Amino acid sequence: MSTSFFQDMLGEIAERGRSLLERSAVVPAISRVGWRSPAKGASIDELSRALLSGRGEASGVAIARQVLDLYAALSPEERTAFFRLLARDFAPSPERLRAAWAQYDADPSPAHLQALLRAVEPPRQELFRRLNLAPGGTRALVAMREKLLEEVGREEEFASVADDLEHLFHSWFNRGFLMMQRITWSTPADILERIIRYEAVHTIHGWDELRRRVQPPDRRCYAFFHPSLVDEPLIFVEVALTREIPHSIQEVLADGREPLAPERATTAVFYSISNCQPGLRGISFGNFLIKQVVEDLCRDIPSLKTFVTLSPIPGFGRWLSRVAEDPEGAGFPGFDRGRLAGLDEPDWHLDPVRTAELKPVMLGLAAAYFLRMKNGKGQPLDPVARFHLGNGARLERINWLGDTSPKGMREGAGLMVNYLYDLGTIEAHHEAYANQGVVAASGPVQRQLRDFEAGLLEGRVAV
Amino acid sequence: MSTSFFQDMLGEIAERGRSLLERSAVVPAISRVGWRSPAKGASIDELSRALLSGRGEASGVAIARQVLDLYAALSPEERTAFFRLLARDFAPSPERLRAAWAQYDADPSPAHLQALLRAVEPPRQELFRRLNLAPGGTRALVAMREKLLEEVGREEEFASVADDLEHLFHSWFNRGFLMMQRITWSTPADILERIIRYEAVHTIHGWDELRRRVQPPDRRCYAFFHPSLVDEPLIFVEVALTREIPHSIQEVLADGREPLAPERATTAVFYSISNCQPGLRGISFGNFLIKQVVEDLCRDIPSLKTFVTLSPIPGFGRWLSRVAEDPEGAGFPGFDRGRLAGLDEPDWHLDPVRTAELKPVMLGLAAAYFLRMKNGKGQPLDPVARFHLGNGARLERINWLGDTSPKGMREGAGLMVNYLYDLGTIEAHHEAYANQGVVAASGPVQRQLRDFEAGLLEGRVAV
Amino acid sequence: MSTSFFQDMLGEIAERGRSLLERSAVVPAISRVGWRSPAKGASIDELSRALLSGRGEASGVAIARQVLDLYAALSPEERTAFFRLLARDFAPSPERLRAAWAQYDADPSPAHLQALLRAVEPPRQELFRRLNLAPGGTRALVAMREKLLEEVGREEEFASVADDLEHLFHSWFNRGFLMMQRITWSTPADILERIIRYEAVHTIHGWDELRRRVQPPDRRCYAFFHPSLVDEPLIFVEVALTREIPHSIQEVLADGREPLAPERATTAVFYSISNCQPGLRGISFGNFLIKQVVEDLCRDIPSLKTFVTLSPIPGFGRWLSRVAEDPEGAGFPGFDRGRLAGLDEPDWHLDPVRTAELKPVMLGLAAAYFLRMKNGKGQPLDPVARFHLGNGARLERINWLGDTSPKGMREGAGLMVNYLYDLGTIEAHHEAYANQGVVAASGPVQRQLRDFEAGLLEGRVAV
Amino acid sequence: MSTSFFQDMLGEIAERGRSLLERSAVVPAISRVGWRSPAKGASIDELSRALLSGRGEASGVAIARQVLDLYAALSPEERTAFFRLLARDFAPSPERLRAAWAQYDADPSPAHLQALLRAVEPPRQELFRRLNLAPGGTRALVAMREKLLEEVGREEEFASVADDLEHLFHSWFNRGFLMMQRITWSTPADILERIIRYEAVHTIHGWDELRRRVQPPDRRCYAFFHPSLVDEPLIFVEVALTREIPHSIQEVLADGREPLAPERATTAVFYSISNCQPGLRGISFGNFLIKQVVEDLCRDIPSLKTFVTLSPIPGFGRWLSRVAEDPEGAGFPGFDRGRLAGLDEPDWHLDPVRTAELKPVMLGLAAAYFLRMKNGKGQPLDPVARFHLGNGARLERINWLGDTSPKGMREGAGLMVNYLYDLGTIEAHHEAYANQGVVAASGPVQRQLRDFEAGLLEGRVAV
Repeated sequence: MSTSFFQDMLGEIAERGRSLLERSAVVPAISRVGWRSPAKGASIDELSRALLSGRGEASGVAIARQVLDLYAALSPEERTAFFRLLARDFAPSPERLRAAWAQYDADPSPAHLQALLRAVEPPRQELFRRLNLAPGGTRALVAMREKLLEEVGREEEFASVADDLEHLFHSWFNRGFLMMQRITWSTPADILERIIRYEAVHTIHGWDELRRRVQPPDRRCYAFFHPSLVDEPLIFVEVALTREIPHSIQEVLADGREPLAPERATTAVFYSISNCQPGLRGISFGNFLIKQVVEDLCRDIPSLKTFVTLSPIPGFGRWLSRVAEDPEGAGFPGFDRGRLAGLDEPDWHLDPVRTAELKPVMLGLAAAYFLRMKNGKGQPLDPVARFHLGNGARLERINWLGDTSPKGMREGAGLMVNYLYDLGTIEAHHEAYANQGVVAASGPVQRQLRDFEAGLLEGRVAV
Repeated sequence: MSTSFFQDMLGEIAERGRSLLERSAVVPAISRVGWRSPAKGASIDELSRALLSGRGEASGVAIARQVLDLYAALSPEERTAFFRLLARDFAPSPERLRAAWAQYDADPSPAHLQALLRAVEPPRQELFRRLNLAPGGTRALVAMREKLLEEVGREEEFASVADDLEHLFHSWFNRGFLMMQRITWSTPADILERIIRYEAVHTIHGWDELRRRVQPPDRRCYAFFHPSLVDEPLIFVEVALTREIPHSIQEVLADGREPLAPERATTAVFYSISNCQPGLRGISFGNFLIKQVVEDLCRDIPSLKTFVTLSPIPGFGRWLSRVAEDPEGAGFPGFDRGRLAGLDEPDWHLDPVRTAELKPVMLGLAAAYFLRMKNGKGQPLDPVARFHLGNGARLERINWLGDTSPKGMREGAGLMVNYLYDLGTIEAHHEAYANQGVVAASGPVQRQLRDFEAGLLEGRVAV
Repeated sequence: MSTSFFQDMLGEIAERGRSLLERSAVVPAISRVGWRSPAKGASIDELSRALLSGRGEASGVAIARQVLDLYAALSPEERTAFFRLLARDFAPSPERLRAAWAQYDADPSPAHLQALLRAVEPPRQELFRRLNLAPGGTRALVAMREKLLEEVGREEEFASVADDLEHLFHSWFNRGFLMMQRITWSTPADILERIIRYEAVHTIHGWDELRRRVQPPDRRCYAFFHPSLVDEPLIFVEVALTREIPHSIQEVLADGREPLAPERATTAVFYSISNCQPGLRGISFGNFLIKQVVEDLCRDIPSLKTFVTLSPIPGFGRWLSRVAEDPEGAGFPGFDRGRLAGLDEPDWHLDPVRTAELKPVMLGLAAAYFLRMKNGKGQPLDPVARFHLGNGARLERINWLGDTSPKGMREGAGLMVNYLYDLGTIEAHHEAYANQGVVAASGPVQRQLRDFEAGLLEGRVAV
Repeated sequence: MSTSFFQDMLGEIAERGRSLLERSAVVPAISRVGWRSPAKGASIDELSRALLSGRGEASGVAIARQVLDLYAALSPEERTAFFRLLARDFAPSPERLRAAWAQYDADPSPAHLQALLRAVEPPRQELFRRLNLAPGGTRALVAMREKLLEEVGREEEFASVADDLEHLFHSWFNRGFLMMQRITWSTPADILERIIRYEAVHTIHGWDELRRRVQPPDRRCYAFFHPSLVDEPLIFVEVALTREIPHSIQEVLADGREPLAPERATTAVFYSISNCQPGLRGISFGNFLIKQVVEDLCRDIPSLKTFVTLSPIPGFGRWLSRVAEDPEGAGFPGFDRGRLAGLDEPDWHLDPVRTAELKPVMLGLAAAYFLRMKNGKGQPLDPVARFHLGNGARLERINWLGDTSPKGMREGAGLMVNYLYDLGTIEAHHEAYANQGVVAASGPVQRQLRDFEAGLLEGRVAV
């Protein structure tokens, strides 16, 4: 037998998922028999309309290819014009919508409801579905939404177009269609290269550092992929297997450390999680990825008992500056902001006297930052906290000088945090958080907050 | 290196795509660490609501698994009750819809349009998306729609539920996500078994006949697959490579025929096309499949010049009976229905005198059946004709005694038809058909019609 | 990325491993640039010599292809002539051998020993190695040895040629290069078809019966494959998972039986093992296959405790006839052969009175057959017994009416046997068997022998 | 279906081919049922003998595993002792050999010849075959030969052991079992890392340079692999697609060059070929690899007309020094070695005056070096020349300042050479070279030689 059935099948997906540029190779063979003569010289506007028309039903794939080829060649100005076309000419027809409403209003039957549903759905959604007929279509549409999001600031009407794509992607990138794949030192280099490029939390400085994150027996990296974007990770997470919950990223990433035999590990530490596709913003993968990794690790490494993150606090630094600068106490009446003096000095964390003074006050402030501060929706200020708490995790520990890199000092004032994924309580935590905004926190963190607030009352902090 | 990146990746899709039953195997390993305690004993109604709630966001995969497990165990009555729940409790809220309309009516801004769109979308669509989080979810939902369609006759309100699934499937089974795969004698047996089972046009009587359709060098079979239904073909087509447009299915399927070397073939004959998944009714794959096969064959076998079907005329027999029984001439004033006498005798086609008499009148009637008869939508009566004409093919030839099997005699009065996929004219034909109802037909077929109608006028036919 | 690294790699093996016929397809592309002009019209003799010469070093692959193409087209007579050529003209040169010996005899240095080794190795071994350069070479050579073995009876000198191929195959088909693969209902149909064809113990009557042997959860089938014969199983074994050691093949193969959940199984029964490639006769795979399957089943199904065969006794029927016909008692003085009367009647096993009488005497005789009878090499008479005892298994139980199929009644007089693979004693049993010819047997079997022999002494058996 | 048949199959090869260390993982599962108790504490000597004995037949895989585990843990001294054991105790028995000879001498029948063949084959060959039963066996044996070759210098008797392994590898690594694989930027990183490490001709300085050699559309890299060494390339070749035969490695490797569209290429340049496995020394892969790459490129890129190398002249620098230092003219009577003055100055090639003077004399000397100078076997002095000429290539052009890297200046005096693989003449060139030592050279190179020699006669060179 020549080749395997499923290998071929995967080849077919992979081929379709590839970039637009390479499609041209297949055209000549076909044109020999007269296939595919779709109007040479037609504009992207005309072809987009044709794709939605009867012609699109007959020759959808060919027209979709043409539209995407033309789109790829647009200048920035032309692209913006095309986006305007999508926003205006492929929006629901107000007349048709009103008529459908009138019908439904008179008789709210299921059929009239369906008709209303069809009338309110923007035609561009069907246009996007038809563009997806072409090889490389999904990839092109994800890239198109990335551009749309970049331009939303300038042209507000593009938001609806981006929303329509998001709605489609919500279906297309359903977790049921994603494949989780472990990333190792045997992963194809072009994918590893993307891991280097997309790492958004703790920069990977080249191939040697990448190897240290994926090759040692106590390191894991997992990513989600989609069949139509076959060599493009959607999101990935890096994991360290340890015997203790780590206090700092320095110890996790230390060069030259002795790897731990996986069967001796008790703790899996998620120390970095990065979204890769700006065009998929708003489609949430992280929760699924973390939980799938927990499942897989549970099965593979029976000694694991604890699943925890080592996370940055990206909003803390800026918030702390406001506290330090606010003569009113920034919501902490009685807080002596003089206690925070010197934080703007470079390398303050290298001064043992200074750090000893700062540690209690900053840990207290951090506890307050997580447990007391709320944004307009009643949620914590910190985006990473919102993500993990929303997943049902618990704020487990605040780590002093957990990240002393320049970025860590600047964004998180050197602090890091562990969120605990305690499998028995995830759902309860999630519900309390989602419904009542309760931030689950460990006893020690709660005590830090109490001590801090008691100190405020007693003026101790201010002394 | 232990295994290949993409092999693993495929394994992951395949595993997720499998049946519900096998999922239970993974649960114990996870429950060791306390994961997944979703309310034991909860009903499918409660869990369905939970899946749409905040809990669904935290534990979607686990709850979806539970719902699908419960669904699989429902009795027919319980299942119908569950469908009613979907139809009623997961429909759009009329109040919310009216409110959204009022808002939009007052100010038709894009934001209000979006809000209206959200209000009119039935919540069960999101429920279905979340059910798809579970391994095997897509498969289960396709099966659910199959059941819904079976029950639509009894409970009309199920149509909306089935429509919502169709809307989702329209996105999920977009051609961009399908994989075309050649079916050969090296294909896994469980897939071949399904080919035998799903063949709907010319029954395959066991493995030996199957082999005759897929193994000879002048035979091809292609199917579409979806990553989430990995071992389930969606649709397949059987192709014979020949040197002439065949006149009958008998010559195509003849046992013991001498195979043709593919490089000598000039003609690819699509002689059977079968949809496999009743749950995907309304999602059209045939047009894409035929055109993809044409592309692939063009590339692989440069000697091919002609792409044609050999198709049944499933509605002709019944229509002919009406003509034969209608004293009014069934729309053919002057037609002497006595000419059709004897058609209800068994094996009339074995009588050479009778067939010589019948041939001209029946070919004329067939031409009229295709070119003159219309249904309420102005389309031809024959469903197969509608499919191929809608794809842009041309009615090329009507074949006398093209299928003398009992089924062929009963349904098509022994006639078969070739539809020509002429690559240069497909689009024009499609448009003329779609817009003006024009049935593209070859010169000889048009002449058969003209001769027949002239005969009617002259009374020749009636002589 | 277009395709996976290892998929491609496997494709390369698979392609090279395929039949000779398809090779011609690649030639035209190459000949465009003038490659490969090896003497058109040269004979297989000339090309074989050329392959061993300097030309073979430059153009080995091309010449090897030509030789194999020519070989494939030989008539039976021409093939025999080619075999004679191999036997005579590609044998070691006696002169060179004598010279090498003289040198070694004078000075038995390592270098002279090497030279002697080279002189005594038949040049056809290198010829075969070079033929293997061609795609499909291994397959062609295995087929060549099959033909050689068929003709050895007629031309004794072919034995040396077959021996040389065996020597090569011993290296090439080293267990280290074999792949064990489970055969399931998802295995490609062309491989399953071979399983049907090659089954040598309990005939598989078509696809439905095959499915009953590979699809139920309590059935397993495993085969060895070689990378260069990718779709040709070398040997396969069929396994039933049970809760008891079975007494008959009827119960194992019963249609309509209720499958056992694998996790409840305690016993793995090897009930059929078949070699597939006559050209590999003498290369032993069975021992490795059984032990690899035991390892894999151990790992996959922790509840398994017992590994046992259900085996035929192919030599027993014939031996029993001799006993029944020998007035001297066939080595059992005092044995009343009248006790065996009626065994030649058809369907004797359906007569309960007769079977009750026959059972003790035949079980006694069977015990004696296994434990007392020896061939010229001091081994048991039964070839299946020699295989399993040689593997270190123990004769565990003799099953009355274990196989009442016509073949089972004829060859084994209805009896079957279980050999136990007791993992702790395999090696000791093997050594006692190999060194001292000891047949390991369970207590009950030994008791049957003792009772039988005591009866002989006491005349009880003769009563 | 869960997974693909051939994916699994490949997994099985891959797993078996992996390193020894990971094998231990499977042992515990098996030992549960008492399997595999081979004498704990036995020495490698005892176990090696046991492996060749009857025990080896019963438990070969287990004992082979143990021997390889013990071998892996040997100290250097113990390893040398083990090699001595192989050299002495696993050599043919002189007594048995003499007896076999006596038998053959008396009656040179095929059977006696076979017996002699068996007697002269060293028992360690069968030992090695049995060691190969263990997972990772092939890999371990290749590594063992590497060590043996390192120690041959110290202990001559190890040469026989290494020769026996070479004999086996000659069978095992037959081209028929090798898989050619293209190396791209999508190849697994661990394999790419080995490409960097094994590149022996033009060092690859890190991942960016590697990418420049495998990713651009006008670059190719191909390697041979063996199923049992699945992630270890055996040999690889780097190819540049160009429109002209290149004059220097600088232009081939230039950073920032504009890639050529493959369909515009006319010339494939093999500019680096590296063997990867010292343990396979003497097993020749290069000829097969080059010719297979030529075949594949022919098929893939129809515009290619010319296949050529850009090769170093590693022996030229040293030879030139001898010429420059030999007052006798180094075989060129009348040659004024003063013409070569300054060659030992660093960066002489940057001095345009000096290079203009040197060019004609050095090109002449190089022509003489290739066409006149012979080693003891009548072959050219240069090893790279011997390789390509032995493959049937032609010396096409000598390139002045073709490699001005420090290594190129030192080893080849800055010169490089193109060998042309002219497909129509390869075989004739090979034969003329192999039989009569004829060095095929292009007209220009021959003219350079003639001019140089004429100059010598006329004293022109000396002027």
